[in-house]
Amino acid sequence: MSSEFRYSQTYFEGLDTDDPLKFARDDFHIPDDLIYFDGNSLGPMLKDIPARINEFLTQEWAEDLIASWNKHDWFASPFRLGQKLAPMIGAKDNEVVVTDIVSINLFKLIIAALRLRPERRKIVSEQGNFPTDLYVIDGAIKVLGQEHFLHAVENRSDILDAIDDETALVLLTDVHYKTGHRLDMKAITEKAHHHGAVVIWDLCHSAGVLPVKLDHIQADFAVGCGYKYLNGGPGAPAFLYIAERHHGAIDQPITGWWSHAAPFEFSDDFIGMSGIGRSLTGTQSILALRCFEIAIDHRLHFNINEIREKSIQLCDAFIGVIEQECADFDFKLITPRAAEWRGSQVAFEHDNAFPIVQALIDQGVVGDFRHPNVLRFGFNPLYNRFSDIWRAGEILSHIMRNETWRAPHFNQRRAVT
Amino acid sequence: MSSEFRYSQTYFEGLDTDDPLKFARDDFHIPDDLIYFDGNSLGPMLKDIPARINEFLTQEWAEDLIASWNKHDWFASPFRLGQKLAPMIGAKDNEVVVTDIVSINLFKLIIAALRLRPERRKIVSEQGNFPTDLYVIDGAIKVLGQEHFLHAVENRSDILDAIDDETALVLLTDVHYKTGHRLDMKAITEKAHHHGAVVIWDLCHSAGVLPVKLDHIQADFAVGCGYKYLNGGPGAPAFLYIAERHHGAIDQPITGWWSHAAPFEFSDDFIGMSGIGRSLTGTQSILALRCFEIAIDHRLHFNINEIREKSIQLCDAFIGVIEQECADFDFKLITPRAAEWRGSQVAFEHDNAFPIVQALIDQGVVGDFRHPNVLRFGFNPLYNRFSDIWRAGEILSHIMRNETWRAPHFNQRRAVT
Repeated sequence: MSSEFRYSQTYFEGLDTDDPLKFARDDFHIPDDLIYFDGNSLGPMLKDIPARINEFLTQEWAEDLIASWNKHDWFASPFRLGQKLAPMIGAKDNEVVVTDIVSINLFKLIIAALRLRPERRKIVSEQGNFPTDLYVIDGAIKVLGQEHFLHAVENRSDILDAIDDETALVLLTDVHYKTGHRLDMKAITEKAHHHGAVVIWDLCHSAGVLPVKLDHIQADFAVGCGYKYLNGGPGAPAFLYIAERHHGAIDQPITGWWSHAAPFEFSDDFIGMSGIGRSLTGTQSILALRCFEIAIDHRLHFNINEIREKSIQLCDAFIGVIEQECADFDFKLITPRAAEWRGSQVAFEHDNAFPIVQALIDQGVVGDFRHPNVLRFGFNPLYNRFSDIWRAGEILSHIMRNETWRAPHFNQRRAVT
Repeated sequence: MSSEFRYSQTYFEGLDTDDPLKFARDDFHIPDDLIYFDGNSLGPMLKDIPARINEFLTQEWAEDLIASWNKHDWFASPFRLGQKLAPMIGAKDNEVVVTDIVSINLFKLIIAALRLRPERRKIVSEQGNFPTDLYVIDGAIKVLGQEHFLHAVENRSDILDAIDDETALVLLTDVHYKTGHRLDMKAITEKAHHHGAVVIWDLCHSAGVLPVKLDHIQADFAVGCGYKYLNGGPGAPAFLYIAERHHGAIDQPITGWWSHAAPFEFSDDFIGMSGIGRSLTGTQSILALRCFEIAIDHRLHFNINEIREKSIQLCDAFIGVIEQECADFDFKLITPRAAEWRGSQVAFEHDNAFPIVQALIDQGVVGDFRHPNVLRFGFNPLYNRFSDIWRAGEILSHIMRNETWRAPHFNQRRAVT
């Protein structure tokens, strides 16, 4: 852009007109006048979900009852969803299951990964990683007898140096939940493998919105959630990836009847299923899986590279508009400017982040506050428009100029922020 | 009953007419002409679930989006459901949460229980327990370093003798999933406590259909599922109970952000929530929880003693009818005749159990085959009628007399039996 270039409503409306993804928005229920930049926390609902769920309830549960385990292939749900999801993260169709929740899948994989390197004790992660990742590492270290230790680097730039011949496991989130900073998955995985370590990637903030190439980086393990960019519904089940080359050695700790080779023989002795199924544990909510499956099926109609291209444009536009319209108000960008090092979110630090986020929500612009001073905005190219970016910038500028965020009710904390 | 008494259709129709619970059936969707004796595997759907779920989807998810975590109290769901469920199992309202799945809750509680008795190594259970319980014990022993061992008694009558001063933990299912035999929870818990051990009760086949009195027996820990007698939907979330006196020492291994005292501070350091919340791990399917909550709310309108009384009558009637109408066909009752030692299910062994169950299903009588030779029938007094018992007996008698079960298609095994 030339230095004289200024963003304008007309400019963004033009981008919307030319947007090849513009029709996708019609598939989602977006409340009137709402600018929703929080699909990285809870993705909106596809319009056809209520009818499809109603069909599931009234036909499969209510009418076909127990026969549905066969008739509607309920038992295969974790595998079927995994197969459909696989291409979105560069996995083979036998390398992914959808099951349980992210934290529990992490626990399973951390133990399984450490068992691959029984002589090593060091786990590398980073401070400020999504906290559950660190908590689960702590819990796993404790249950294994406190012989392992966590080396959590202070800065992401120190990760590569922290990986050495003592390292058993590296556990990282590729796109940082707060800053949106994206790691070099390939370099980190290569370094880990060079030193004989394995890596677990937490894809919660990347899967579905940017091309994750687990095959290309020769990934070992990964997890991710269904309720953010994948629009699977509030608290949707999580996914779990194990590279095929590790399938012979999968040894996860929570072996239930769904990880058994022949679950319906109800044998006292545990004989593990071969392959990715070994990572399952027990009976899953078929309702929650079906809801997520509808969203996955929809997503398969879109090209992830096209999604990524628009995501980059949306983030660039948002940074540009805030810096143009709110230049006087001390917003400090903490997301990388370089698109290649970014996920699909933009975050600013500001001393008054909390009330500003509340004032924005009050004006119909939904972003997140993240403790202690971060405003976080996530963009999903399937329903966010360029004109939304412009309007959000104008609203934020108005809030800052008029200091409406100072109103006492915007400063009141709630249970869930 | 006198020796001349014979069951008849008229007799059972009379019982239905006098049944104080007869109107409850109208609340459930029961397919036309289906006799469903499998509510102990997948409970039928309440009729108002589709409308209520539609409301949840279109208003809470689609319209209120991320604000629903506060506005509709999503975050409190595991606690709220637990509070409502508590009186059904004799628990206080701060002793139960609804979260995750049975197997994973067992894993959490096994580790937490063993940590209460760090100097002991013996775990008592029984052979032929629901297999996942044994598999999860195995997985827990392994992750803790193989120093613990499982003593699984061959006969339930040997359980009390197996509990000694070496015992750290007793893990049992009060109502056996196959035979329906009910254990003396009080005697076993007392014996365990006398020897300084703790007990985990798996209530999968009792909660909701008979009065479980965890307070009365001074229980330590319990788990149970939502999708059987509690009608929470296919794969509904599970519940987890920890007696208040253990709350100060809850130390479960899968600590995620939902077990943190201040989850929204996103702190690197884990500080566990006090109380039952410490047993949570991470983000739950709010859709699955809501579906279960509708069923729990419905159940609160009924008296568990009234349910139990009818359950006993249904089981007695079923045993009586089969023994009267099918006396020539070698069905061997493996469920106790004495009501106090029974859950709400009746099981018979028969050499041709598999094809007979298929032939029954073909005639609209749904029970379960359980490997290798068991026919299992579960009764839920809220929708099963006495006249259903009579008709099922007539149909089974017809199948046996005409040997219709010999048809090849009834002998074909499927993925899920």
